[in-house]
Amino acid sequence: MKIIETIQELRKELQPHRSNAIGLVPTMGYLHEGHLSLIRRAKQECNTVVVSIFVNPLQFGPNEDFERYPRDLERDAQLAEEVGADLLFTPSAAEMYPRPIRTRVTVAGLTERLCGASRPGHFDGVTTVVSKLFHIVEPDRAYFGQKDAQQAAVIQQMVQDLNFPLEVIVCPTVREPDGLALSSRNVYLSEEERRQATVLFQSLQEAEKRWRDGAFSSAAEMEAFIRDRIETQPLAVIDYVSVLRYPALELPEDLHGPLIVAVAVFFGKTRLIDNVVLPGKEEAACFAR
Amino acid sequence: MKIIETIQELRKELQPHRSNAIGLVPTMGYLHEGHLSLIRRAKQECNTVVVSIFVNPLQFGPNEDFERYPRDLERDAQLAEEVGADLLFTPSAAEMYPRPIRTRVTVAGLTERLCGASRPGHFDGVTTVVSKLFHIVEPDRAYFGQKDAQQAAVIQQMVQDLNFPLEVIVCPTVREPDGLALSSRNVYLSEEERRQATVLFQSLQEAEKRWRDGAFSSAAEMEAFIRDRIETQPLAVIDYVSVLRYPALELPEDLHGPLIVAVAVFFGKTRLIDNVVLPGKEEAACFAR
Repeated sequence: MKIIETIQELRKELQPHRSNAIGLVPTMGYLHEGHLSLIRRAKQECNTVVVSIFVNPLQFGPNEDFERYPRDLERDAQLAEEVGADLLFTPSAAEMYPRPIRTRVTVAGLTERLCGASRPGHFDGVTTVVSKLFHIVEPDRAYFGQKDAQQAAVIQQMVQDLNFPLEVIVCPTVREPDGLALSSRNVYLSEEERRQATVLFQSLQEAEKRWRDGAFSSAAEMEAFIRDRIETQPLAVIDYVSVLRYPALELPEDLHGPLIVAVAVFFGKTRLIDNVVLPGKEEAACFAR
Repeated sequence: MKIIETIQELRKELQPHRSNAIGLVPTMGYLHEGHLSLIRRAKQECNTVVVSIFVNPLQFGPNEDFERYPRDLERDAQLAEEVGADLLFTPSAAEMYPRPIRTRVTVAGLTERLCGASRPGHFDGVTTVVSKLFHIVEPDRAYFGQKDAQQAAVIQQMVQDLNFPLEVIVCPTVREPDGLALSSRNVYLSEEERRQATVLFQSLQEAEKRWRDGAFSSAAEMEAFIRDRIETQPLAVIDYVSVLRYPALELPEDLHGPLIVAVAVFFGKTRLIDNVVLPGKEEAACFAR
């Protein structure tokens, strides 16, 4: 695996591989099993796999954790290589933004709720840097995790709206044995916060089970159920609990799937997110078999 | 030359030509000698030349001339073929916007003055559709006219900011023998309006000559001179006369080049634009030789 820091060098390196499939796994580094599952999938489907590591200042708000976001390039390089990455692209902020960037790619609608409401400008930063990475790497396929469900939906929309010549592949959330969704931010958690954080997925699972049993009469009722569950944990401070149509991320008129149930919860300064997708009729029939 | 109406067919057609240089000339059709000069230049520099004709609804304001914008596909096809176009891409609005588009590409700063101020949202429509065309055609080079100087500067900025893997080539304005810049909108002009419209370039030329002689002490003075000249024509209604730094399109602190002197003038409902670029020191020295 080669580690490459400049756009020019990366393009040169990719040139001879352009006739075969190129896969891109864009990350902010501090790789965990979730990222590795994306790289493995890319390796299965593509001849050349590029993993990018870039903690993108554009997608962090002024009071967010850009500075303290965990970084460990040496360990990341070892892990990425082990699961089959061919090129590790680790540009500096000066390489990605050599002068003040005046251009933004924005997706309306999908970005207004959930993390878009809590983190103004966040998704503009994501879609802008992902556009740049798409233009630099020119991948045939790009891989994103379902844990960041809204991000995946926003990028899908952008790719379709702007005719990016690539396929977006969304891969399942990878979890700890106790259900906590893997996240680079989990390292921020104290022992006690880590213990209580299991409430996110537990509450989502319980809500999903009850939804399948037809126990809820409205999205509000389902959200209230999850809120109550999460609030049993004294360190949990809810940012949002939201049931929306999926992937449009609009308010649901009823509780027929596909829906997304998404939560964001603070433990101290650490903000964790998780979600489950509740299937539509056809998919639900598959589950029932 | 093949005429192609769908994105899928165009991509299929271009596939075997991707190893050689592809040139794109994006137009709104009703081709004139200005467009043809872009196609000829593309043909010189590229193996395959794609000319797109798409009157993009996204870049017209509600009270602008989208509906009556002149169209003549048969004549356009003949002209494009004569000067060497290989593929003529003529998508419908439904092909380009199969569902409401939620994504926008916007360039801040450069779009605030000149036509950006007069036509709110116009450049967002331009950069968004040009992004789509770039992703559909994946050209190595894209050709634009200097007549639309602000558009060219905005697209240059977008390409650099978002790392589009292509080169933007800006070609000189083509003019009628009496100096009027060629424009598809010139057909709107009555005989009398057409006669008076020569004042745009005449006033710019006179201003440039005086600027070279050091006759102006400020941008405001230069603008006033041009306004006075244009207003000698009774049918001319000035939208703007503006002297800005080029290509940044910022207010100038002095009158050292490179500057752009840009005008937009209504004749009846018809809005015409024109500009000259005043060179910086090095270029000016070339001229003086």
